[in-house]
Order: sequence, then C-alpha cells, then structure tokens
Amino acid sequence: MSGPAIRIVEVGPRDGLQNEAALVPTDTKVALIDRLSATGLPVVEAGAFVSPKWVPQMADTADVLARIQRRPGVGYPVLVPNERGLTQALAAGVTEIAVFAAASEAFSQRNINCSIAESLDRFAPVTRLARDNGVAVRGYVSCVLGCPYEGAIDPAKVAEVSARLVELGCAEISLGDTIGVGTPAKAAALIRRVAEEVPVSRLAAHFHDTYGQALANLLACLDEGIRVIDSSVAGLGGCPYAKGATGNVATEDVVYMLEGQGLSTGVDLDALSAIGGWISDAIGRPNASRAGRALLAKAG
Amino acid sequence: MSGPAIRIVEVGPRDGLQNEAALVPTDTKVALIDRLSATGLPVVEAGAFVSPKWVPQMADTADVLARIQRRPGVGYPVLVPNERGLTQALAAGVTEIAVFAAASEAFSQRNINCSIAESLDRFAPVTRLARDNGVAVRGYVSCVLGCPYEGAIDPAKVAEVSARLVELGCAEISLGDTIGVGTPAKAAALIRRVAEEVPVSRLAAHFHDTYGQALANLLACLDEGIRVIDSSVAGLGGCPYAKGATGNVATEDVVYMLEGQGLSTGVDLDALSAIGGWISDAIGRPNASRAGRALLAKAG
Repeated sequence: MSGPAIRIVEVGPRDGLQNEAALVPTDTKVALIDRLSATGLPVVEAGAFVSPKWVPQMADTADVLARIQRRPGVGYPVLVPNERGLTQALAAGVTEIAVFAAASEAFSQRNINCSIAESLDRFAPVTRLARDNGVAVRGYVSCVLGCPYEGAIDPAKVAEVSARLVELGCAEISLGDTIGVGTPAKAAALIRRVAEEVPVSRLAAHFHDTYGQALANLLACLDEGIRVIDSSVAGLGGCPYAKGATGNVATEDVVYMLEGQGLSTGVDLDALSAIGGWISDAIGRPNASRAGRALLAKAG
Repeated sequence: MSGPAIRIVEVGPRDGLQNEAALVPTDTKVALIDRLSATGLPVVEAGAFVSPKWVPQMADTADVLARIQRRPGVGYPVLVPNERGLTQALAAGVTEIAVFAAASEAFSQRNINCSIAESLDRFAPVTRLARDNGVAVRGYVSCVLGCPYEGAIDPAKVAEVSARLVELGCAEISLGDTIGVGTPAKAAALIRRVAEEVPVSRLAAHFHDTYGQALANLLACLDEGIRVIDSSVAGLGGCPYAKGATGNVATEDVVYMLEGQGLSTGVDLDALSAIGGWISDAIGRPNASRAGRALLAKAG
C-alpha cells in the first residue's frame, strides 16, 4: 500500500496565524488544528516557542499543544529558534521541530540580528539535543527567490544553506519564497541547483502568493521532483486584500490543482474548504482561497 | 525587429465589465480603454453590440467607440452576436469583431437558447459580411474545460467547434475556461487536441481564476505553444471576494509571470498596475490582481 503522491505540510496555525493582525484565542487555535488533522493532512504545524515579546501570536503554544487531540500518524511540528525554545518544546511533548535560516545575509541581519553563519552555528546544539531526544528536525530557508533588502538571491547560496542545515541534522528542508516574488522558471532552476546538494526527496516547496505566482511555481517544482508542499488553509498569513500583504498559498488551491493533476494528497478538500471558511469568519478576514470560496459557494 | 513573445488580449473593458455588478459610466470606460492602450497592450476589447435588455453593461458601446482615441497598431475588437450587431459595429467603424459559441450543448441552450450547431449556422452570414467589409473575426469558445450543467467536456468537442469557427472565417480562436475549473494537465491536453484541428498559432488561452488555477494553466499552455493570452486588468469580471465569483485572470499577474519567464509582452507593468488600482477604486471593488496590489504597495 502506498501513501498519497504529495505530502502537504499545513502551516496555517503557525506560519499563517503568526502573520495575521488578529490575536487568535487559544480555543480557536485548538479547534483549527483538530479540524485540520481530521481532513487527512499528514502534518499540521502547531505553534512556535519563540519570544512572546517578538511574536505575541504564538505565546500560547504550550497551551495549544496540551489541548489538541494528537491524531496517530499526524505530525505537529513547532518552530524553535534556540535551546530555550527546544526545552519548552520537549516539555510540551513535541516530537518534531523546525529551525530556520535565511538565504539572504541582509534578511538574516534584520530578521534575527545575526549573520547566516551565526544563525546556523546557534542551531547546532539545538538540533543535537533534539536528535538526542528522538525529535525530528525540519529546516526552513527563507528568501530563496528574493529578498526585500538584497533583491535577487543566488541559488548557490540557497543550496549552501540547505546543505548546512542537513549537516546539522535536518531531515527535510523547506525552501521559502518569503516575499512571493518568484516565477516558475526561476523556481525550477532553484530546485535543480539545491538538488545538487540535497536530494530532492528531502526538499519541500513553500510559496507565498504575493504576486499570484504560487501555484504556477509549484507546478514547475513538481516537474523537478518536489513531492512535499507547504500551504496554509484559507491562505492564512497576512490579510490577502491589503496592499502588498504576503499570504501563504492556500491549501485548498494546492489540493485542487494536485487532485486535478492526478496527484493524490489524502486530504478531504470539501472538509478543508469548510475549515477555511470557518477560520476566515472566526478571525474576521476574507477567505483568500479561491478554490475554497468556489467550493463553498457550490455547497450553498 | 521582432515583436513581443506573447500577445496579451486585454478583455477587461468588455468581458470584465460585462460581468461586474456595477454599471460603469461611459466616461470611465473611455478612460479605461485609453489608459490601457497606452501601456503597450496590442489588443483592448472595447465593448459588445448585444441586446441592452440582456447586457445593460454594454449598452453604450457605440458611444465608447466614438470617444476613445484609436491608437495606431492597437486592435479594439467588439463582441457581436448577430447581423444586427455587426451592422452597428460597422457603423461604429469597428475593424475587428468577436463571435462566440459554447463547447457544451447544455450551456449553449441555456445561454443563447439554441444548439451549438444552430449558433454556428447563425454566425455564417455574420462572419461573411464581416470579411466582405475587411473586418477580422475572432471566435470565442466557452466551457472548454467544464460546464456548469454538463460537467466535463470532451476536448474533441472543443476541437470540432473551433475548427468550424475557423471554417466560418475566424482568424483566431480563444479557448475559454468560463467557470475556471481546469487544471494544468487538462489544459495542456486540451490544447494538444484542439491543435490537431487548428494550428496552435491561431489559438488563444482564456482562463478564469475561480479556483485559483489560471496562471498554472497558462504555464502549461505556454509549454504547448500558446502565444496569445486573454486577461483582464485587476481581474475585472465578477467581484473577486464574493463566494464563487468568477473573475478573469488578472493581466498584471499574467504579465508578471511572463516577464519572469523571459517572455516579453511589450506591456508596461507599472502603468498597468496603476490602471488596475484606479479602475478598482472607480467601480468600488477590491483589486483582484495580487501582482497589481503588491506593485502598488511597493510604489507606496
């Protein structure tokens, strides 16, 4: 028996909500995660152990983790920036974490106040301790197709950072077009270059839909062998109709495309669309998934 | 000297505005068309000579045509359903018209109250008279990837209707995914099948973004040799944030992707984005172009 052709990593409850203006009640987060894990999604990013001063949206992650129903076979990774965060994660019974680095020096400096090399050195003890505790580690690389400060990014730099994260023990590398500027041929070329250093089976594609390019980019990445896709129900992550907001690609749109391509995801699209409509209403924003809106309209 | 790699057919002032809830003042339409033709767009669909009872949004087409500045080298086709419409078009000095047929029998019956064959027979004298007057004719085929009443549509049927429109004298056939249900592999298979009957150089791709698939579908069609793309500034055509609304793919998003792919369009994307912002404000709807919104935000 083989599983779905594509593994969707649902990042709405973390990457999505972290970038929403509204502070979401813990009850809502718990309901969101539990509803998502019931749709067949194999991975639901559940929160982050980061400074509540910097990221107040994630301050209740321990509470969220204590209250969700952990469904067998579903992963609930949390973002962890340092050993303090990892300690909290271990105390919360986390079995998967994610660490992050930028492919842009300027972005690294402005976002986490250190160079890329320093950020990677800082993760070494974190990933070591994680693995000592049997915790799987995912690595996020940001700004892979462009940086708001530097502009274009050399794919070789992305490959180098990705390879270093694998050396540090990351089982999977998620390549993030953080500002959504990529286009398909550039996305494909990036995957090809990174795959020279890290097997494509260990790479995930993480696109934001700022310029509307996310699905087209994913299509190009599928042609390069990508089989893991990060996405966010209802396109959570930045108000989609504000000027220049940078939401994640919507999971509903991704699943609709994949199923149309004959690529199974194991995800119940109607159930997912219902969740997208519900969470959009719950946090008072428009639903940024076009497939979600269309399916909800059909359902009446 | 060779022209742009891709020819964009801007359909916002007709296919777009015709499907907007708001009735747009003639002054605004004239300004929209004149601003669009100044961006480098080679074709700006300018209106329709259809019954004002059925399509009140297009009732002022003769007025619009009398008042726009006709820029040399730019085409201003109008939609024409019958000889009466053609007579009006000729009187207005039109040099390009478009006729339309469905690839779905059920859609043809419900939309124009006759069979596909009857609709094509009805166009025969129209296209003959058009050509006798040196007027170029474009043919639209609707529901090419799905019908709201019939569901899936056989690509062979689309090929048959397209071939018949070419026989009737259409120089170009625009294949329309009217309800936006297509996905990339299906779009590519359609183009391949229709290209067995009509050279791909005479085909245009016309996608609606109902399920968010339009750009990915266009990418797949480009791989099949499509070089003419219909799109609508700001994604005009149905409120984008209403449930199930079915706007055209936004011209800004298309141009952004094409330029990123190294495929020239000759269109000034910044000027186009400004127009998209202006017309969205003017008719009181959100701007449905994500590239447009992002570029406007960057411009400040």
